[in-house]
Order: sequence, then structure tokens, then C-alpha cells
Amino acid sequence: MTTVTLGHDEGLLAPSLRLIATEVDRAFDLLLPEPADGRIKLYQAMRHAAIGGGKRLRPLLVIAAAELFAVPRERAFRAGMAVECIHVHSLIHDDLPCMDDDDLRRGKPTVHCAFDEATAVLAGDSLHALAFELLADPATHPDPSVRAELTLSLARSVGASGMAGGQMLDLMPEPSIGDLEAIARLQRLKTGALIGWCLDAGGALGQAGEEARRSLRGYARCVGLAFQIADDLLDVEGCEAAAGKRLRKDDAAGKPTFVSLLGAPAARAQANLLSSQAIDHLADFGPRADLLRAVARFAVERDR
Amino acid sequence: MTTVTLGHDEGLLAPSLRLIATEVDRAFDLLLPEPADGRIKLYQAMRHAAIGGGKRLRPLLVIAAAELFAVPRERAFRAGMAVECIHVHSLIHDDLPCMDDDDLRRGKPTVHCAFDEATAVLAGDSLHALAFELLADPATHPDPSVRAELTLSLARSVGASGMAGGQMLDLMPEPSIGDLEAIARLQRLKTGALIGWCLDAGGALGQAGEEARRSLRGYARCVGLAFQIADDLLDVEGCEAAAGKRLRKDDAAGKPTFVSLLGAPAARAQANLLSSQAIDHLADFGPRADLLRAVARFAVERDR
Repeated sequence: MTTVTLGHDEGLLAPSLRLIATEVDRAFDLLLPEPADGRIKLYQAMRHAAIGGGKRLRPLLVIAAAELFAVPRERAFRAGMAVECIHVHSLIHDDLPCMDDDDLRRGKPTVHCAFDEATAVLAGDSLHALAFELLADPATHPDPSVRAELTLSLARSVGASGMAGGQMLDLMPEPSIGDLEAIARLQRLKTGALIGWCLDAGGALGQAGEEARRSLRGYARCVGLAFQIADDLLDVEGCEAAAGKRLRKDDAAGKPTFVSLLGAPAARAQANLLSSQAIDHLADFGPRADLLRAVARFAVERDR
Repeated sequence: MTTVTLGHDEGLLAPSLRLIATEVDRAFDLLLPEPADGRIKLYQAMRHAAIGGGKRLRPLLVIAAAELFAVPRERAFRAGMAVECIHVHSLIHDDLPCMDDDDLRRGKPTVHCAFDEATAVLAGDSLHALAFELLADPATHPDPSVRAELTLSLARSVGASGMAGGQMLDLMPEPSIGDLEAIARLQRLKTGALIGWCLDAGGALGQAGEEARRSLRGYARCVGLAFQIADDLLDVEGCEAAAGKRLRKDDAAGKPTFVSLLGAPAARAQANLLSSQAIDHLADFGPRADLLRAVARFAVERDR
């Protein structure tokens, strides 16, 4: 078991996070010019949601995984933009009044508050489609079989057997089984499927062998769950200003979480263990995987 | 100019429509088995919206276009299922209270009425993803470049520069320019882009030449507009029981349509002219295009 060293990755991770945040904002700015017709409000809403404030963790995961196989960065970046489109789509729809009814996201009013509900539904739908438009474009990878594979796996991660199915479980008024296994299953669908896609996309872009891809899947499972537990801890202990979203919502809704079931100290220990297990999955990759190792530590250390 | 003969295609079109309706219902039944967990409501909502009652015009267009190039029917059918997923997705979201606020669709309560709004948003999102899952699967076409091309063009037809952009224009409270050109532009985005994709998918699956694909684009433009004008006429003159949806909504909302601007007789003449022009675009295809010719006539003759 690797010992998790906390707080020593500023040198590696912080510049990568700053760089990707700038690049993602710039790419969305170029992708979403405001048209000179009645659709301007739709584009403004997409820009409001997509530009500024995100951690851009998913694009970073794609790029970090792709680096293991020397994939040209611009290809990994396009796949990262695709998954970020899906992520922003899901935030817009999950924040709707009929869903989680949130008014604050990434430090700004949510889309239905800043615009209106109809525009929020359509902005989410448009970003959903944009993800596949980016992914299927020849610029993402010259081999169309790679693009088709990425498209197929992303669609599976997003639909009723993935993210949308997880959100449905999360909306159930009475959790039928409030045990750890049920919560872990919800997490695997709601957030784990998309995080798993990010790592797998790196392997697909690099046309990596089965063993390497299996290691990345193991890393993704551990990091995804560590992130979720850290999110649950932030929901209880965090600061709304730093998080940029409303906190203490799970408790108010009476939703069981890792923290409510385990208690905060045991949940934190579990998150740290998962972070360390994630790093163990990277043993065969050498120093090329240092960025992924830093992400695994960041998962459980961040304040937002 | 070909003379449009009305009412003589029962022999060709009606069996094709009945067959495709049965096949699409059966395929959705197999694609969407109800899971034994909390996601069951999501799948029930998807089944409610997707199974039963649709004209299945878009799958029929894909299959009829693919027939021109001797594409195996099961491939065209998968692409047709993909576009039907997108169509049903758009109906679910467009019917939401924050959008067109409809309570009746395909003769049944709309999804948010039969279930709830959150489930309707997620069912629409899940069908959106399912479209790309179906399309990117190797069963759709053995050549991945064909699948990637179909994915890219479908995503473009669906997002802010296509269907979602058209719905945004349609939601504008005050149409900025209530002239025919503005309405035609709205139609090209809101419904024309997806209908155009159906015909183009036939050509892509058949790896057809540029000349044939240009003819299909011309046919799609004319048929799409003819369908919209016929829909506007149905909204004024039709029977809700036959249509399976609420009518007289455009007039109540004060929305300009082809009928309100031209008057019903001139709008009908325009629709018939477009149907006939659509058929003209098929001149080079011979009897193989008879099904597409029948669809062009059906566009302006139907009662739903």
C-alpha cells in the first residue's frame, strides 16, 4: 500500500488545473459565438453554464490518462471538452426546480435562475449534442473506429444505464435501502460512469493494451468513489463561498450519504484509503502517471 | 413538374407504415426492459413515450432512402431507431410545462403528466443518449467511418445549430419578424434538420455518390417544409382525436404560421407544390424511390 502524502503536489497539479481551466474556457468561448438571431439567449445560457468556475477535473483526467500513451494533447483535449459538455449538461438539468432545485452553481446563479427553465432545458440538451459533435469529428482521432468507440462508450455512460439512471435513483423520495452498498451503487451510476469514461478515453485514444486499460478502470473506480465521499464531506463541513454551490442539502433532504452512515472521521479515512488504492493501480506506469497520482490526492484534499 | 396524384398510394405506403410501427414498438420493447431497481420509473417513462402511437415517419424515411442504395434493412432500421429516439426525446422536453405545456401526445398523457417533470427531463435525456448508443454500435454499419459520419451529422442536427436552436426560436414570446422567411427558417432548424438527417443517413449508409446525396437533400428540404405546412393546416382544421395531441394552440398563442400568413387555401396549394417538387428531386432514382414518392404525397394528405 502506497502512503498518501498530503499537500505536496502544488508543483504538479495546480499549474495543470490552472492551464486546463484557461484552455477549456477559451475553447467554449470559440465554440459558442453568440448568433445574431433569436437563438442568442440559448447561446448566452450555454456560455453562462460552460465558461468560468469549473474545476475541469474530467478534461484533466482524460488528458492525464492520454499522456500515459503519448497521445497528442489536442486530441485528448477534444475528448475532454466532450465530457465537460456532458458534465455541464447534467449540472444544468440537475439544478432545475423539478430536480434538485438549486440556485447557485460555480459561484453564479444557476441557468434557470439567470435565464428561465425552458432555456435551461434547451441549453442542457444542446451541450449534450455538442459533446457528440466534438467527439465524432475527425480532429479527435484520425481512426474512425476510435471515434466510434468513444461515442458508444460515452453514450452508455450518460443514459439510463449510467448518469441519468443514477440521477433517477438519487431523486427517489424514500431510498429503499439506505445502506453503503446502495449508496455506492448510486455513485457508480451517477458520477462513476462518466469518470470511468474519462480514464478509458485516454486508453482508447492511445489504443492501449487490455492490461493498461484494466489498471485505468481500477484507478477510475477508486478515484470516483473517493471524490464522492469527499463531496459528501464538503457538503457537511465545507464553505459555500469556496464550493460555489449550496451545501448542507443532503442532510436537509434526509438523504443517506457516506458521511451520515459512517460518520465524518470514518468517511474521511475511507476516502483516503480509496485515494491510496487508486494510486496503487498506477504502479506499472512509472513517472508518466504522476499527474493521475496528484489527481487522486487532490480528490480528497480539495475545498470545492 | 410532376402532377401530384392524391389518395392512390394505399397499396405502397400504408403497409410500410404499419410494418415500421410494429417493428419500432417491438425494438423499443426489447431495448428498454424494466430494471428491478429504483430506475424502473425512468424506464417506464421512456417506454410510455417511445412505444405506441407514433407515425414513425423518420425511421421510414431512413429506410426508404437506404433502399435506393440496397442497404441491408437492419442497418437502416438501427439508424431509424436512433433518429426516433431523438424525436421522442424532443417531444418529451417540448411538452414540459416550461416549454409548450402540453398534456396530450400520441393519444396519451404526456410524460410529465403520467409521471412527473423530473422523470420527464431524465427520460428525454436518456433517449438522447440512446440515439448515439444505437448509432455508434458496429451493428449499424461495419465501416466505423460511416458510423462516425452519422454521429457527427446527427449531433449537428440536434443541438443549438439545429433542432434545439429551432425550439428556442419557437419559444420567443414576440416573433421579431413574422414573415414567411422567418417561419421557414424556424422550420428548417426545428424539424427540417432532423428530417434532412434521415435522408442523408440513407445516403451515408449506402456510401452513395455526391449527386445522389444532393438529390436527397433537395427532396428533404421540400418534404420537410410540406410536412410543416400540413401540420399548421392540421392545427387549424384537424381533429384532436385523430391527431392524438392538442390542436389550435398556435392560434391561441398568437403565433404566426404558414396558415395565418397565407390563408388556408394558399397554404394548402404551397404544401402540394412542395410535395410535387420533392418528387421531382427523385427523378433519377426510378421505381426504387416509389416509397419516398408515397411519403411526399402522404406528407400533405394525412389526418394526423
